[in-house]
Amino acid sequence: MAASDDPATLSPLAPEHFPDMPPVSGVRLATTGSGMKYRGRDDVLLAAFDAGTSVAGVFTRSGTAAAPVAWCRRALRDGNGEARGLLVNAGNANAFTGRAGVDSVNRTVKAVADLLGCPPDRVLVASTGVIGEPLPDDRLRDRLPALHRELGSASLETAAKAIMTTDTFAKGASASLLMDDREITLTGIAKGSGMIAPDMATMLSFVFTDAVIGHDVLQPMLADVTGRTFNCITVDSDTSTNDSLLLFATGAAGNRPIVTTDDPRLAAFEEALEQVCRELAQQIVRDGEGAEKFITVTMTGAEDDGVAHRLALAVANSPLVKTAIAGEDANWGRIVMAIGKAGEALDHNRVRIDIGGVPVADNGRAVDGYDETPVAAHMAGREIAIAVDIGVGRGQATVWTCDLTHGYISINADYRS
Amino acid sequence: MAASDDPATLSPLAPEHFPDMPPVSGVRLATTGSGMKYRGRDDVLLAAFDAGTSVAGVFTRSGTAAAPVAWCRRALRDGNGEARGLLVNAGNANAFTGRAGVDSVNRTVKAVADLLGCPPDRVLVASTGVIGEPLPDDRLRDRLPALHRELGSASLETAAKAIMTTDTFAKGASASLLMDDREITLTGIAKGSGMIAPDMATMLSFVFTDAVIGHDVLQPMLADVTGRTFNCITVDSDTSTNDSLLLFATGAAGNRPIVTTDDPRLAAFEEALEQVCRELAQQIVRDGEGAEKFITVTMTGAEDDGVAHRLALAVANSPLVKTAIAGEDANWGRIVMAIGKAGEALDHNRVRIDIGGVPVADNGRAVDGYDETPVAAHMAGREIAIAVDIGVGRGQATVWTCDLTHGYISINADYRS
Repeated sequence: MAASDDPATLSPLAPEHFPDMPPVSGVRLATTGSGMKYRGRDDVLLAAFDAGTSVAGVFTRSGTAAAPVAWCRRALRDGNGEARGLLVNAGNANAFTGRAGVDSVNRTVKAVADLLGCPPDRVLVASTGVIGEPLPDDRLRDRLPALHRELGSASLETAAKAIMTTDTFAKGASASLLMDDREITLTGIAKGSGMIAPDMATMLSFVFTDAVIGHDVLQPMLADVTGRTFNCITVDSDTSTNDSLLLFATGAAGNRPIVTTDDPRLAAFEEALEQVCRELAQQIVRDGEGAEKFITVTMTGAEDDGVAHRLALAVANSPLVKTAIAGEDANWGRIVMAIGKAGEALDHNRVRIDIGGVPVADNGRAVDGYDETPVAAHMAGREIAIAVDIGVGRGQATVWTCDLTHGYISINADYRS
Repeated sequence: MAASDDPATLSPLAPEHFPDMPPVSGVRLATTGSGMKYRGRDDVLLAAFDAGTSVAGVFTRSGTAAAPVAWCRRALRDGNGEARGLLVNAGNANAFTGRAGVDSVNRTVKAVADLLGCPPDRVLVASTGVIGEPLPDDRLRDRLPALHRELGSASLETAAKAIMTTDTFAKGASASLLMDDREITLTGIAKGSGMIAPDMATMLSFVFTDAVIGHDVLQPMLADVTGRTFNCITVDSDTSTNDSLLLFATGAAGNRPIVTTDDPRLAAFEEALEQVCRELAQQIVRDGEGAEKFITVTMTGAEDDGVAHRLALAVANSPLVKTAIAGEDANWGRIVMAIGKAGEALDHNRVRIDIGGVPVADNGRAVDGYDETPVAAHMAGREIAIAVDIGVGRGQATVWTCDLTHGYISINADYRS
C-alpha cells in the first residue's frame, strides 16, 4: 500500500480495458479530488443508494483495524441492514489515528447523512492510503455539497479510478442473471496492489446489485463467497488495516423479495456474486506490486479444505517460491519446502507436484525420467499453474498470487511512501 | 538457499574477520571437495569425537524434513546419547529424494562408522543445498578414507567454510568458563543465508565443548537455548527442510560429570552456550540474502512471551516493513499493520512504538510533535532497532532479522539455483 506519486507502469498482467458494465439502478456515483495527497486525479468517491437498499459487509481481522472499519461494523449492526450512502477516500487510511481518527469519521458521516437526509448509521465509509497520519476530514467535508449535486455523473470506471493508490489499472467486474423474469445486474469495483493478504476480507471492494435481497440473507452469503474469492488471494502476506468489502442491494430490479437463506432463487445469485468477486480478486493479484506473472496454486488431496487452504497459502506466500517463478526457474524443491513449513501433518512420500500440468514429483521424489523442457516453457509464460496433491484426503483449495520481483522492492523501498 | 556459483559479494554486515577460536579437545576435523556441485572449494566436513562424547540436537519441524534429519533423530534416540562422528556436505540437501535418499544416508553412515570403529547410530549426518535431487553419495564415500587419514588437519574456520552455500562469510563463535577449576571451552560454527525461519531449529550449526555433561542434561538445555537464539531469527520466513543444530560434549576437560538438570554448575555453562548460539544466529542474519541492515525487533508488554514472540516475528517477516527499512523510510505505519495482522488480541490504543530509541507512536497514534529527523538518521545506519510495547502485560521477546532488498531478488530470481 505504498502510495507513491511516481507514475506507475501498467502491470503486464492488466486486462486490455475496463469491462463494459451496465449501471445498477438505484446507485448514483460522483467523484472529486480532495487535494489531500494526490494531484491531478480524483481521490474521493460518494455513492448514494435509493431508500430500501440493503447492505452486507466483511472486514479485515487486523488487530489494528482503522477507524472507518470500526464505524462500518457499527453501522452494519445498528443500521437495520440498510444503507443510503458510501464515502471512500484514497491517500490516507485513517488507521492508528486514535481518537482524532474516530472524530474524523463521525464528522464526515454526519455531513453525508445530513445531505442524504438519513440517519448516520445508514452511511458507510472506507479509507485507504498511509497509516498513522491524521485524516484532514475538512477536505472531504468541503467537497461534499458539490459531490452531492453531481451524484449520477460518475461511471463505475471513474469510481474505480478514484479509489486507487498504487494500483496501475482500475478494477471492475459484472454479471447478470434472470430472477422472476427480471434481469438482475451485479457490478463491482475494487482497489488493491500491495499489503494484500485478506483475512475474512479484502482490500477495498464495493459490489452493487439491483436485486431485492435483505441484509440477513446477503450477509452470510457474502461471507461464504469471500472465503472462496478474496480470501484466496495474496500478494505479499501483509494484511491491511483497512480491508473492506461491501455489497449493496438496491432492490430496483423488483423481483419478489428474498428474505430467507434457503430461497431456491439464491443459488444463481450467489454464483453471479462469486463470479464478480473472483474476477475482482484476481484483478488485484494481476495488479500486485511488481507482478510479472499470475500464479494459480491448486492444492488437493488434503485432510480437509482448511488444511488445503493453509498449504496453498504457504506456497503462495513463500518468497523463495515467488522469486523462483520471477526467475522462470522450475525450482520445485522450493514448493516442497513451502508445504513442509506450513505446520500441517504430512506424509511427504505421498506428495505429487505438477507444474503447468506436467508431473514433476511424485511419491516423495522427482518423477522418473523428469524432462524439464515443457516445464521451463510453461515458466516462461505469464500464467503459472502449480498443482500439489497431498495424497491423504479429499480437501482442496485454490489460491491466486503473483511473483516477487525487483518491481516490488522498487515500489516499496526505492521511493518514499 | 539458492546455491549460485556466481561469486557472492561479501555482506556489508559481515564481521571483520573470523573469530580466534581455541580448538576443543576431543574433536578432530577434516574437509575436502566432493566435486558434487562446487568447484575450487571444500564442501565436505568430517568430524570425529573421542569415545564418551555426548550429543544433543534440535531439528526442523518441516513436514518435508530431509533424509539426514530423519537419520539424526533416530541416532539421537537409539545411540545412547553418544556420538563418534559427524559428516556434513554442502550443495545437495538430500531432501525429497524418497527411498534413494534414505539409502544414501544409510550407506554413508555405515562407511563412516566402519572407519571410526563405532556403531552407525553414533554417526550424525547433515546436508544442505538443492532440494529434490538424488545425493550422489558415492562421491562422499570415495573421499572418506582420505578424510579419515587427515582428521585433525582442519581448523574451525576451514570447517565453517566447507559447509557454506549462499553464505558470503564463514560463521563461528566461542565462549569459555571455569568449572571445577577446569577451563571449559565452547566453539560453534554455522551456515545459513536464505530459507531462514527456524522453527525449533536452525540452518546447520554445530557446537563443540569439552565439558563432561550427559545427553539427558544437554538435550533439554539445547532446546531451551534454541528457543532464545536460533528460533529468534528470520531472513525470509521460509523454513528449511534441513535445519539441524547439534551439540557435542567430548568430556576432555575432566570436570566432575554433570548428570542432572538441577546441577548448580549448569547456569554458567548454559549462559556460555546461549552466547555462542546467539552470536551464530545473529551472524546468519548478518549474512541474510541481500541484507544491508541488521534489525532488532523487541516486543514488550504482551500478554505472555509466546504472544510477544509471534508479534515480533510478524514485524520481522513483513515484506513491507523490511522493504521500508531497505529504503531507509521511517514508515512506522507498516509496523502497525504487521502487529495488526498477527492474529493476536490487541488494544491498539495502548500500543507504543520506538525506532532507534525515539518514540514515534503512543496511545494508538503518532506522538505529539513527532520529529522524524533523529529517526531518519537512525534509519540511515546499518543497525536498526524497533521496539514495540503492547501495553497489556509483561510478556517480551526479541527477534533479529534483516531488510528485504534488490539483492534478495537477484540472488533468488536472477540466477538459476
